[in-house]
Amino acid sequence: FLKKQYKEPIMVSSTDGVGTKTIFILENMENKLGMRVLGQDIVNHCINDILVKGAIPLMFLDYFASSSIDSELVKSFVEGVSLSCRHSFCNLMGGETAEMPGVYQPGKIDIVGTIVGVVEKSKMINGKKDIKLGNKVYGLKSNGPHTNGYSLIRRIYSQNKDLRVFPELLTSHKSYLDEIKLLWRNKIQINGLCHITGGGFYDNIPRVLPEGLGVDLNFEIQDIYRKLGDIGGIEDRELLTVFNCGYGMLIFVEEGVEMPRGYDYLGEVCEGEIKINC
Amino acid sequence: FLKKQYKEPIMVSSTDGVGTKTIFILENMENKLGMRVLGQDIVNHCINDILVKGAIPLMFLDYFASSSIDSELVKSFVEGVSLSCRHSFCNLMGGETAEMPGVYQPGKIDIVGTIVGVVEKSKMINGKKDIKLGNKVYGLKSNGPHTNGYSLIRRIYSQNKDLRVFPELLTSHKSYLDEIKLLWRNKIQINGLCHITGGGFYDNIPRVLPEGLGVDLNFEIQDIYRKLGDIGGIEDRELLTVFNCGYGMLIFVEEGVEMPRGYDYLGEVCEGEIKINC
Repeated sequence: FLKKQYKEPIMVSSTDGVGTKTIFILENMENKLGMRVLGQDIVNHCINDILVKGAIPLMFLDYFASSSIDSELVKSFVEGVSLSCRHSFCNLMGGETAEMPGVYQPGKIDIVGTIVGVVEKSKMINGKKDIKLGNKVYGLKSNGPHTNGYSLIRRIYSQNKDLRVFPELLTSHKSYLDEIKLLWRNKIQINGLCHITGGGFYDNIPRVLPEGLGVDLNFEIQDIYRKLGDIGGIEDRELLTVFNCGYGMLIFVEEGVEMPRGYDYLGEVCEGEIKINC
Repeated sequence: FLKKQYKEPIMVSSTDGVGTKTIFILENMENKLGMRVLGQDIVNHCINDILVKGAIPLMFLDYFASSSIDSELVKSFVEGVSLSCRHSFCNLMGGETAEMPGVYQPGKIDIVGTIVGVVEKSKMINGKKDIKLGNKVYGLKSNGPHTNGYSLIRRIYSQNKDLRVFPELLTSHKSYLDEIKLLWRNKIQINGLCHITGGGFYDNIPRVLPEGLGVDLNFEIQDIYRKLGDIGGIEDRELLTVFNCGYGMLIFVEEGVEMPRGYDYLGEVCEGEIKINC
Protein backbone atom coordinates (compact mmCIF):
# COMPACT_ATOMS: atom_id res chain seq x y z
CA PHE A 1 0.00 0.00 0.00
CA LEU A 2 2.69 2.47 1.05
CA LYS A 3 4.82 1.48 -1.92
CA LYS A 4 2.08 2.28 -4.39
CA GLN A 5 0.91 5.60 -3.05
CA TYR A 6 4.12 7.19 -1.78
CA LYS A 7 7.51 7.89 -3.34
CA GLU A 8 9.27 8.55 -0.03
CA PRO A 9 6.87 7.72 2.79
CA ILE A 10 7.86 9.18 6.17
CA MET A 11 6.31 7.55 9.23
CA VAL A 12 5.10 9.97 11.91
CA SER A 13 3.99 8.77 15.33
CA SER A 14 2.76 10.10 18.64
CA THR A 15 1.77 8.87 22.09
CA ASP A 16 -0.51 10.86 24.35
CA GLY A 17 -3.01 10.57 27.18
CA VAL A 18 -6.28 12.33 27.99
CA GLY A 19 -5.04 13.40 31.41
CA THR A 20 -7.48 14.21 34.19
CA LYS A 21 -10.45 14.68 31.84
CA THR A 22 -11.30 11.07 32.80
CA ILE A 23 -12.14 12.19 36.34
CA PHE A 24 -14.35 15.10 35.26
CA ILE A 25 -16.21 12.96 32.72
CA LEU A 26 -16.85 10.08 35.15
CA GLU A 27 -18.09 12.53 37.79
CA ASN A 28 -20.40 14.50 35.48
CA MET A 29 -21.69 12.19 32.79
CA GLU A 30 -23.44 8.84 32.43
CA ASN A 31 -20.34 6.65 32.56
CA LYS A 32 -20.82 4.55 29.44
CA LEU A 33 -21.53 7.62 27.33
CA GLY A 34 -18.55 9.28 28.98
CA MET A 35 -16.23 6.44 28.06
CA ARG A 36 -17.29 6.79 24.41
CA VAL A 37 -16.34 10.46 24.56
CA LEU A 38 -12.95 9.57 26.07
CA GLY A 39 -12.36 6.92 23.39
CA GLN A 40 -12.97 9.52 20.69
CA ASP A 41 -10.86 12.03 22.63
CA ILE A 42 -7.69 9.97 22.61
CA VAL A 43 -7.92 9.04 18.92
CA ASN A 44 -8.71 12.57 17.74
CA HIS A 45 -6.02 14.11 19.94
CA CYS A 46 -3.45 11.75 18.41
CA ILE A 47 -4.72 12.38 14.85
CA ASN A 48 -4.19 16.13 15.31
CA ASP A 49 -0.72 15.58 16.78
CA ILE A 50 0.56 13.94 13.59
CA LEU A 51 -1.65 16.02 11.27
CA VAL A 52 0.47 19.07 12.11
CA LYS A 53 3.36 17.40 10.19
CA GLY A 54 1.03 16.71 7.26
CA ALA A 55 0.61 13.03 8.13
CA ILE A 56 -2.61 11.06 7.75
CA PRO A 57 -3.35 8.26 10.22
CA LEU A 58 -2.57 4.61 9.42
CA MET A 59 -2.87 2.80 12.72
CA PHE A 60 -3.83 3.29 16.34
CA LEU A 61 -3.32 1.35 19.58
CA ASP A 62 -5.01 2.11 22.89
CA TYR A 63 -4.18 1.49 26.54
CA PHE A 64 -6.79 1.54 29.32
CA ALA A 65 -5.73 1.11 32.94
CA SER A 66 -7.64 1.40 36.18
CA SER A 67 -7.79 0.30 39.80
CA SER A 68 -10.49 -2.16 38.76
CA ILE A 69 -11.70 -2.99 35.29
CA ASP A 70 -15.39 -2.55 34.52
CA SER A 71 -15.81 -4.45 31.25
CA GLU A 72 -18.90 -2.39 30.30
CA LEU A 73 -16.86 0.79 30.52
CA VAL A 74 -14.00 -0.72 28.54
CA LYS A 75 -16.50 -1.79 25.87
CA SER A 76 -17.89 1.75 25.59
CA PHE A 77 -14.36 3.16 25.51
CA VAL A 78 -13.39 0.84 22.64
CA GLU A 79 -16.62 1.80 20.82
CA GLY A 80 -15.52 5.44 20.98
CA VAL A 81 -12.03 4.53 19.80
CA SER A 82 -13.42 2.46 16.89
CA LEU A 83 -15.83 5.19 15.88
CA SER A 84 -13.10 7.79 15.55
CA CYS A 85 -10.71 5.33 13.86
CA ARG A 86 -13.34 4.32 11.30
CA HIS A 87 -14.22 7.91 10.57
CA SER A 88 -10.57 8.65 9.77
CA PHE A 89 -9.74 5.38 7.96
CA CYS A 90 -7.27 4.53 10.71
CA ASN A 91 -6.67 0.84 11.53
CA LEU A 92 -7.27 -0.05 15.16
CA MET A 93 -4.37 -2.49 15.55
CA GLY A 94 -4.88 -3.51 19.14
CA GLY A 95 -4.69 -2.37 22.68
CA GLU A 96 -4.09 -3.33 26.24
CA THR A 97 -6.20 -3.24 29.39
CA ALA A 98 -4.56 -3.27 32.81
CA GLU A 99 -6.08 -3.61 36.28
CA MET A 100 -3.76 -2.28 39.00
CA PRO A 101 -5.41 -1.43 42.32
CA GLY A 102 -2.01 -0.72 43.90
CA VAL A 103 -1.09 1.87 41.29
CA TYR A 104 -4.38 3.69 40.55
CA GLN A 105 -6.63 5.57 42.97
CA PRO A 106 -9.94 3.74 43.53
CA GLY A 107 -12.23 4.17 40.52
CA LYS A 108 -9.70 6.26 38.61
CA ILE A 109 -8.69 5.57 35.02
CA ASP A 110 -5.80 6.39 32.73
CA ILE A 111 -6.19 6.35 28.96
CA VAL A 112 -3.30 6.43 26.52
CA GLY A 113 -3.16 6.20 22.74
CA THR A 114 -0.45 5.75 20.17
CA ILE A 115 -0.85 6.64 16.52
CA VAL A 116 1.28 6.01 13.47
CA GLY A 117 0.71 7.90 10.26
CA VAL A 118 2.46 8.61 7.00
CA VAL A 119 3.36 11.63 4.91
CA GLU A 120 5.10 11.98 1.56
CA LYS A 121 8.52 13.43 2.40
CA SER A 122 8.16 16.35 -0.03
CA LYS A 123 4.78 17.25 1.51
CA MET A 124 5.76 17.35 5.16
CA ILE A 125 4.55 20.45 6.96
CA ASN A 126 7.41 22.20 8.72
CA GLY A 127 6.41 25.53 10.23
CA LYS A 128 9.92 26.34 11.47
CA LYS A 129 11.23 26.11 7.90
CA ASP A 130 8.31 27.52 5.94
CA ILE A 131 6.47 30.15 8.00
CA LYS A 132 7.48 33.66 6.99
CA LEU A 133 6.86 37.22 8.19
CA GLY A 134 3.44 38.39 7.00
CA ASN A 135 1.96 34.88 6.70
CA LYS A 136 -1.72 34.82 7.63
CA VAL A 137 -3.04 32.85 10.59
CA TYR A 138 -6.45 31.14 10.42
CA GLY A 139 -8.19 29.27 13.21
CA LEU A 140 -10.47 26.24 13.31
CA LYS A 141 -13.04 26.17 16.09
CA SER A 142 -12.79 23.68 18.94
CA ASN A 143 -15.60 21.53 20.38
CA GLY A 144 -14.74 22.55 23.92
CA PRO A 145 -11.54 22.39 25.99
CA HIS A 146 -10.77 19.06 24.28
CA THR A 147 -8.39 17.21 26.60
CA ASN A 148 -6.70 20.18 28.24
CA GLY A 149 -7.36 22.32 31.27
CA TYR A 150 -9.39 19.77 33.23
CA SER A 151 -7.34 20.10 36.41
CA LEU A 152 -8.25 23.79 36.48
CA ILE A 153 -11.87 23.04 35.49
CA ARG A 154 -12.15 20.56 38.37
CA ARG A 155 -10.72 23.12 40.79
CA ILE A 156 -13.27 25.73 39.67
CA TYR A 157 -16.18 23.27 40.00
CA SER A 158 -15.01 22.03 43.39
CA GLN A 159 -14.99 25.65 44.63
CA ASN A 160 -18.36 26.43 43.02
CA LYS A 161 -20.62 23.48 43.80
CA ASP A 162 -23.74 25.11 42.29
CA LEU A 163 -22.17 25.95 38.95
CA ARG A 164 -23.93 24.08 36.14
CA VAL A 165 -21.75 21.89 33.95
CA PHE A 166 -21.37 23.48 30.51
CA PRO A 167 -22.10 20.87 27.79
CA GLU A 168 -18.90 21.84 25.94
CA LEU A 169 -16.92 20.37 28.86
CA LEU A 170 -18.38 16.93 28.09
CA THR A 171 -17.71 16.85 24.34
CA SER A 172 -14.88 15.00 22.66
CA HIS A 173 -11.66 16.36 21.22
CA LYS A 174 -12.26 17.49 17.63
CA SER A 175 -10.24 15.92 14.83
CA TYR A 176 -9.20 18.50 12.22
CA LEU A 177 -8.33 15.89 9.60
CA ASP A 178 -11.36 16.66 7.39
CA GLU A 179 -10.78 20.43 7.44
CA ILE A 180 -7.10 20.04 6.55
CA LYS A 181 -7.87 17.49 3.82
CA LEU A 182 -10.25 20.06 2.29
CA LEU A 183 -7.35 22.53 2.02
CA TRP A 184 -5.18 19.84 0.37
CA ARG A 185 -7.97 19.09 -2.12
CA ASN A 186 -8.14 22.82 -2.91
CA LYS A 187 -4.34 22.87 -3.43
CA ILE A 188 -3.86 25.41 -0.66
CA GLN A 189 -0.27 25.30 0.55
CA ILE A 190 -0.01 25.07 4.33
CA ASN A 191 3.18 26.58 5.77
CA GLY A 192 2.47 25.50 9.32
CA LEU A 193 -0.13 23.96 11.61
CA CYS A 194 -0.38 24.40 15.35
CA HIS A 195 -2.49 22.08 17.53
CA ILE A 196 -3.52 24.09 20.60
CA THR A 197 -3.15 21.58 23.45
CA GLY A 198 -1.62 21.74 26.94
CA GLY A 199 0.18 25.07 27.31
CA GLY A 200 -2.33 26.80 25.04
CA PHE A 201 -1.34 29.58 22.65
CA TYR A 202 1.74 30.78 24.52
CA ASP A 203 3.49 27.38 24.66
CA ASN A 204 2.36 25.78 21.40
CA ILE A 205 2.74 28.60 18.86
CA PRO A 206 6.49 29.21 19.45
CA ARG A 207 7.12 25.52 18.73
CA VAL A 208 6.09 25.91 15.09
CA LEU A 209 7.49 29.41 14.40
CA PRO A 210 11.01 30.16 13.13
CA GLU A 211 13.30 31.95 15.60
CA GLY A 212 12.52 35.63 16.12
CA LEU A 213 8.97 35.53 14.74
CA GLY A 214 5.74 35.93 16.67
CA VAL A 215 2.06 36.37 15.87
CA ASP A 216 -0.37 39.23 16.26
CA LEU A 217 -3.82 37.71 16.80
CA ASN A 218 -7.26 39.23 17.36
CA PHE A 219 -10.14 37.12 18.58
CA GLU A 220 -12.68 36.91 21.34
CA ILE A 221 -12.08 34.35 24.06
CA GLN A 222 -15.08 32.06 23.70
CA ASP A 223 -17.94 32.49 26.12
CA ILE A 224 -17.46 29.41 28.36
CA TYR A 225 -13.75 30.12 28.95
CA ARG A 226 -14.60 33.74 29.72
CA LYS A 227 -17.18 32.53 32.26
CA LEU A 228 -14.80 30.01 33.80
CA GLY A 229 -12.19 32.77 33.97
CA ASP A 230 -14.59 35.16 35.72
CA ILE A 231 -15.76 32.54 38.21
CA GLY A 232 -12.24 31.28 38.93
CA GLY A 233 -10.62 34.72 38.94
CA ILE A 234 -8.26 33.82 36.11
CA GLU A 235 -6.44 36.40 33.95
CA ASP A 236 -6.71 36.26 30.13
CA ARG A 237 -3.05 35.32 29.81
CA GLU A 238 -3.59 32.25 31.98
CA LEU A 239 -6.82 31.33 30.16
CA LEU A 240 -4.90 31.43 26.88
CA THR A 241 -2.16 29.21 28.34
CA VAL A 242 -4.51 26.59 29.80
CA PHE A 243 -7.36 26.48 27.25
CA ASN A 244 -7.72 26.62 23.48
CA CYS A 245 -10.29 29.37 24.21
CA GLY A 246 -12.31 28.41 21.12
CA TYR A 247 -9.67 27.57 18.52
CA GLY A 248 -8.05 24.11 18.55
CA MET A 249 -6.01 24.37 15.37
CA LEU A 250 -4.14 27.27 13.77
CA ILE A 251 -3.23 27.31 10.07
CA PHE A 252 -0.38 29.41 8.65
CA VAL A 253 -0.63 30.30 4.94
CA GLU A 254 0.87 32.83 2.52
CA GLU A 255 -0.67 36.29 2.25
CA GLY A 256 -3.39 36.42 -0.42
CA VAL A 257 -4.49 32.79 -0.12
CA GLU A 258 -8.29 32.52 -0.16
CA MET A 259 -9.56 30.27 2.58
CA PRO A 260 -12.95 28.49 2.62
CA ARG A 261 -15.72 29.60 4.96
CA GLY A 262 -15.33 28.43 8.57
CA TYR A 263 -11.59 29.04 8.60
CA ASP A 264 -11.55 32.18 10.74
CA TYR A 265 -8.97 34.87 10.07
CA LEU A 266 -7.15 35.56 13.34
CA GLY A 267 -4.14 37.66 12.40
CA GLU A 268 -0.64 37.43 10.98
CA VAL A 269 2.95 36.50 11.63
CA CYS A 270 5.00 39.41 12.95
CA GLU A 271 8.42 39.99 14.42
CA GLY A 272 8.95 39.39 18.12
CA GLU A 273 6.47 38.09 20.63
CA ILE A 274 3.12 36.31 20.76
CA LYS A 275 0.51 39.10 20.99
CA ILE A 276 -3.13 38.20 21.52
CA ASN A 277 -5.83 40.88 21.70
CA CYS A 278 -9.01 39.48 23.07
CA PHE B 1 13.99 2.14 3.44
CA LEU B 2 10.96 -0.16 3.54
CA LYS B 3 10.58 0.07 -0.23
CA LYS B 4 14.13 -1.11 -0.83
CA GLN B 5 14.31 -4.00 1.59
CA TYR B 6 10.80 -5.45 1.44
CA LYS B 7 8.59 -6.65 -1.41
CA GLU B 8 5.40 -6.67 0.68
CA PRO B 9 6.14 -5.09 4.05
CA ILE B 10 3.52 -5.83 6.75
CA MET B 11 3.47 -3.51 9.74
CA VAL B 12 3.05 -5.21 13.11
CA SER B 13 2.43 -3.25 16.29
CA SER B 14 1.79 -3.75 19.98
CA THR B 15 1.03 -1.77 23.12
CA ASP B 16 1.78 -3.09 26.58
CA GLY B 17 2.58 -2.06 30.13
CA VAL B 18 4.92 -3.43 32.78
CA GLY B 19 2.09 -3.81 35.31
CA THR B 20 2.81 -3.86 39.03
CA LYS B 21 6.51 -4.69 38.59
CA THR B 22 7.01 -0.91 39.05
CA ILE B 23 5.93 -1.20 42.70
CA PHE B 24 8.20 -4.15 43.50
CA ILE B 25 11.20 -2.54 41.79
CA LEU B 26 10.76 0.82 43.55
CA GLU B 27 10.39 -0.93 46.92
CA ASN B 28 13.39 -3.23 46.52
CA MET B 29 15.97 -1.50 44.36
CA GLU B 30 17.87 1.78 44.22
CA ASN B 31 15.27 3.80 42.33
CA LYS B 32 17.34 5.20 39.48
CA LEU B 33 18.79 1.77 38.69
CA GLY B 34 15.30 0.37 38.98
CA MET B 35 13.90 2.82 36.47
CA ARG B 36 16.57 1.76 33.97
CA VAL B 37 15.45 -1.84 34.43
CA LEU B 38 11.82 -0.82 33.85
CA GLY B 39 12.80 1.15 30.73
CA GLN B 40 14.49 -1.94 29.30
CA ASP B 41 11.53 -4.07 30.44
CA ILE B 42 8.93 -2.23 28.43
CA VAL B 43 10.99 -2.11 25.22
CA ASN B 44 12.02 -5.78 25.38
CA HIS B 45 8.51 -6.94 26.23
CA CYS B 46 7.17 -5.10 23.18
CA ILE B 47 9.99 -6.43 20.94
CA ASN B 48 9.06 -10.01 21.86
CA ASP B 49 5.36 -9.34 21.28
CA ILE B 50 5.92 -8.49 17.60
CA LEU B 51 8.85 -10.92 17.18
CA VAL B 52 6.38 -13.81 17.50
CA LYS B 53 4.91 -12.73 14.12
CA GLY B 54 8.42 -12.60 12.63
CA ALA B 55 8.62 -8.80 12.78
CA ILE B 56 11.71 -6.78 13.62
CA PRO B 57 11.32 -3.48 15.46
CA LEU B 58 11.26 -0.14 13.64
CA MET B 59 10.01 2.37 16.17
CA PHE B 60 9.04 2.74 19.81
CA LEU B 61 7.14 5.29 21.88
CA ASP B 62 6.94 5.37 25.67
CA TYR B 63 4.47 6.73 28.22
CA PHE B 64 5.37 7.41 31.85
CA ALA B 65 2.71 8.56 34.29
CA SER B 66 2.77 9.08 38.05
CA SER B 67 1.19 10.94 40.93
CA SER B 68 4.20 13.27 40.85
CA ILE B 69 6.99 13.39 38.33
CA ASP B 70 10.56 12.97 39.58
CA SER B 71 12.66 14.14 36.62
CA GLU B 72 15.67 12.08 37.77
CA LEU B 73 13.60 8.92 37.65
CA VAL B 74 12.17 9.81 34.24
CA LYS B 75 15.73 10.39 33.00
CA SER B 76 16.84 6.96 34.20
CA PHE B 77 13.74 5.37 32.69
CA VAL B 78 14.43 6.98 29.30
CA GLU B 79 18.07 5.80 29.55
CA GLY B 80 16.82 2.24 29.93
CA VAL B 81 14.41 2.69 27.02
CA SER B 82 17.17 4.15 24.81
CA LEU B 83 19.60 1.39 25.73
CA SER B 84 17.22 -1.35 24.64
CA CYS B 85 16.12 0.55 21.53
CA ARG B 86 19.74 1.12 20.43
CA HIS B 87 20.61 -2.52 21.02
CA SER B 88 17.78 -3.57 18.71
CA PHE B 89 18.15 -0.82 16.08
CA CYS B 90 14.72 0.49 17.01
CA ASN B 91 14.02 4.23 16.62
CA LEU B 92 12.83 5.91 19.80
CA MET B 93 10.26 8.23 18.18
CA GLY B 94 9.01 10.02 21.25
CA GLY B 95 7.03 9.67 24.38
CA GLU B 96 4.82 11.34 26.88
CA THR B 97 5.11 12.06 30.60
CA ALA B 98 2.00 12.74 32.67
CA GLU B 99 1.64 13.91 36.28
CA MET B 100 -1.78 13.06 37.71
CA PRO B 101 -2.03 13.03 41.52
CA GLY B 102 -5.80 12.50 41.35
CA VAL B 103 -5.46 9.36 39.25
CA TYR B 104 -2.35 7.63 40.63
CA GLN B 105 -1.69 6.43 44.16
CA PRO B 106 1.04 8.52 45.89
CA GLY B 107 4.48 7.56 44.54
CA LYS B 108 3.08 4.98 42.15
CA ILE B 109 3.99 4.82 38.47
CA ASP B 110 2.57 3.36 35.30
CA ILE B 111 4.74 2.61 32.29
CA VAL B 112 3.42 1.85 28.82
CA GLY B 113 5.16 1.26 25.52
CA THR B 114 4.09 0.98 21.90
CA ILE B 115 6.18 -0.65 19.22
CA VAL B 116 5.86 -0.81 15.46
CA GLY B 117 7.80 -3.33 13.42
CA VAL B 118 7.84 -4.82 9.97
CA VAL B 119 7.90 -8.27 8.40
CA GLU B 120 8.00 -9.43 4.80
CA LYS B 121 4.53 -10.83 4.14
CA SER B 122 5.84 -14.20 2.90
CA LYS B 123 7.96 -14.58 6.04
CA MET B 124 5.30 -13.91 8.66
CA ILE B 125 5.27 -16.49 11.44
CA ASN B 126 1.80 -17.95 11.88
CA GLY B 127 1.71 -20.83 14.35
CA LYS B 128 -2.01 -21.50 13.88
CA LYS B 129 -1.40 -22.13 10.17
CA ASP B 130 2.03 -23.80 10.23
CA ILE B 131 2.44 -25.81 13.44
CA LYS B 132 1.80 -29.54 12.85
CA LEU B 133 1.51 -32.68 14.93
CA GLY B 134 4.98 -33.92 15.84
CA ASN B 135 6.66 -30.50 15.57
CA LYS B 136 9.41 -30.07 18.16
CA VAL B 137 9.25 -27.42 20.90
CA TYR B 138 12.40 -25.63 22.05
CA GLY B 139 12.68 -23.10 24.86
CA LEU B 140 14.82 -20.01 25.42
CA LYS B 141 15.70 -19.22 29.02
CA SER B 142 14.27 -16.18 30.77
CA ASN B 143 16.14 -13.62 32.90
CA GLY B 144 13.59 -13.89 35.69
CA PRO B 145 9.79 -13.43 35.83
CA HIS B 146 10.20 -10.59 33.29
CA THR B 147 7.10 -8.40 33.69
CA ASN B 148 4.63 -11.04 34.88
CA GLY B 149 3.60 -12.42 38.22
CA TYR B 150 4.57 -9.42 40.33
CA SER B 151 1.21 -9.14 42.09
CA LEU B 152 1.73 -12.70 43.37
CA ILE B 153 5.41 -12.00 44.16
CA ARG B 154 4.39 -8.94 46.19
CA ARG B 155 1.80 -10.98 48.09
CA ILE B 156 4.38 -13.64 48.95
CA TYR B 157 6.91 -11.05 50.14
CA SER B 158 4.32 -9.16 52.15
CA GLN B 159 3.45 -12.42 53.96
CA ASN B 160 7.12 -13.38 54.43
CA LYS B 161 8.88 -10.24 55.58
CA ASP B 162 12.24 -12.00 56.18
CA LEU B 163 12.45 -13.61 52.74
CA ARG B 164 15.48 -12.31 50.84
CA VAL B 165 14.80 -10.72 47.45
CA PHE B 166 16.06 -13.04 44.71
CA PRO B 167 18.19 -11.05 42.21
CA GLU B 168 16.24 -12.55 39.28
CA LEU B 169 13.21 -10.57 40.46
CA LEU B 170 15.08 -7.32 39.79
CA THR B 171 16.33 -8.08 36.29
CA SER B 172 14.83 -6.79 33.07
CA HIS B 173 12.64 -8.57 30.57
CA LYS B 174 14.85 -10.43 28.08
CA SER B 175 14.57 -9.62 24.38
CA TYR B 176 14.76 -12.74 22.23
CA LEU B 177 15.47 -10.84 19.02
CA ASP B 178 19.13 -11.91 18.82
CA GLU B 179 18.34 -15.60 19.38
CA ILE B 180 15.61 -15.61 16.73
CA LYS B 181 17.80 -13.69 14.27
CA LEU B 182 20.43 -16.42 14.69
CA LEU B 183 17.88 -19.02 13.58
CA TRP B 184 17.00 -16.88 10.53
CA ARG B 185 20.70 -16.56 9.63
CA ASN B 186 20.97 -20.36 9.85
CA LYS B 187 17.91 -20.70 7.55
CA ILE B 188 15.96 -22.59 10.22
CA GLN B 189 12.25 -22.39 9.41
CA ILE B 190 10.20 -21.35 12.44
CA ASN B 191 6.62 -22.66 12.41
CA GLY B 192 5.57 -20.81 15.54
CA LEU B 193 6.84 -18.65 18.41
CA CYS B 194 5.18 -18.26 21.79
CA HIS B 195 6.10 -15.42 24.16
CA ILE B 196 5.36 -16.67 27.70
CA THR B 197 3.81 -13.60 29.38
CA GLY B 198 0.75 -13.08 31.61
CA GLY B 199 -1.19 -16.35 31.75
CA GLY B 200 1.99 -18.41 31.41
CA PHE B 201 2.09 -21.70 29.53
CA TYR B 202 -1.57 -22.60 29.84
CA ASP B 203 -2.93 -19.33 28.39
CA ASN B 204 -0.26 -18.44 25.84
CA ILE B 205 0.48 -21.76 24.11
CA PRO B 206 -3.12 -22.40 22.91
CA ARG B 207 -3.07 -18.98 21.20
CA VAL B 208 -0.42 -20.13 18.70
CA LEU B 209 -1.55 -23.74 18.18
CA PRO B 210 -4.01 -24.93 15.53
CA GLU B 211 -7.35 -26.23 16.88
CA GLY B 212 -7.16 -29.68 18.47
CA LEU B 213 -3.41 -29.70 19.04
CA GLY B 214 -1.57 -29.52 22.35
CA VAL B 215 1.99 -29.94 23.58
CA ASP B 216 3.71 -32.52 25.73
CA LEU B 217 6.56 -30.76 27.54
CA ASN B 218 9.17 -31.97 30.03
CA PHE B 219 11.22 -29.50 32.03
CA GLU B 220 12.09 -28.57 35.57
CA ILE B 221 10.40 -25.49 37.01
CA GLN B 222 13.35 -23.20 37.69
CA ASP B 223 14.62 -22.94 41.24
CA ILE B 224 13.32 -19.50 42.23
CA TYR B 225 9.76 -20.23 41.06
CA ARG B 226 9.88 -23.56 42.90
CA LYS B 227 10.97 -21.70 46.05
CA LEU B 228 8.29 -19.02 45.64
CA GLY B 229 5.76 -21.82 45.10
CA ASP B 230 6.84 -23.65 48.27
CA ILE B 231 6.81 -20.50 50.38
CA GLY B 232 3.49 -19.26 49.00
CA GLY B 233 1.83 -22.70 48.95
CA ILE B 234 1.23 -22.55 45.19
CA GLU B 235 0.53 -25.61 43.03
CA ASP B 236 2.65 -26.29 39.91
CA ARG B 237 -0.32 -25.64 37.64
CA GLU B 238 -0.71 -22.13 39.08
CA LEU B 239 3.06 -21.47 38.95
CA LEU B 240 2.99 -22.38 35.24
CA THR B 241 0.04 -20.03 34.67
CA VAL B 242 1.55 -17.06 36.49
CA PHE B 243 5.28 -17.36 35.71
CA ASN B 244 7.43 -18.29 32.72
CA CYS B 245 9.12 -20.69 35.20
CA GLY B 246 12.46 -20.35 33.37
CA TYR B 247 11.48 -20.20 29.69
CA GLY B 248 10.31 -16.90 28.20
CA MET B 249 10.05 -17.95 24.56
CA LEU B 250 9.02 -21.22 22.91
CA ILE B 251 10.03 -22.11 19.36
CA PHE B 252 8.11 -24.61 17.20
CA VAL B 253 10.08 -26.29 14.37
CA GLU B 254 9.80 -29.37 12.13
CA GLU B 255 11.03 -32.70 13.42
CA GLY B 256 14.67 -33.30 12.53
CA VAL B 257 15.73 -29.63 12.55
CA GLU B 258 19.06 -29.19 14.32
CA MET B 259 18.98 -26.34 16.79
CA PRO B 260 22.03 -24.44 18.10
CA ARG B 261 23.22 -24.88 21.68
CA GLY B 262 21.20 -22.94 24.30
CA TYR B 263 17.89 -23.71 22.61
CA ASP B 264 16.60 -26.32 25.05
CA TYR B 265 14.53 -29.21 23.78
CA LEU B 266 11.28 -29.25 25.80
CA GLY B 267 9.00 -31.67 23.98
CA GLU B 268 6.66 -31.91 21.02
CA VAL B 269 3.29 -31.03 19.60
CA CYS B 270 0.66 -33.69 20.31
CA GLU B 271 -3.08 -34.09 20.01
CA GLY B 272 -5.31 -32.70 22.72
CA GLU B 273 -4.28 -30.78 25.81
CA ILE B 274 -1.31 -28.86 27.18
CA LYS B 275 0.65 -31.42 29.26
CA ILE B 276 3.62 -30.24 31.30
CA ASN B 277 5.67 -32.70 33.34
CA CYS B 278 7.89 -30.87 35.77
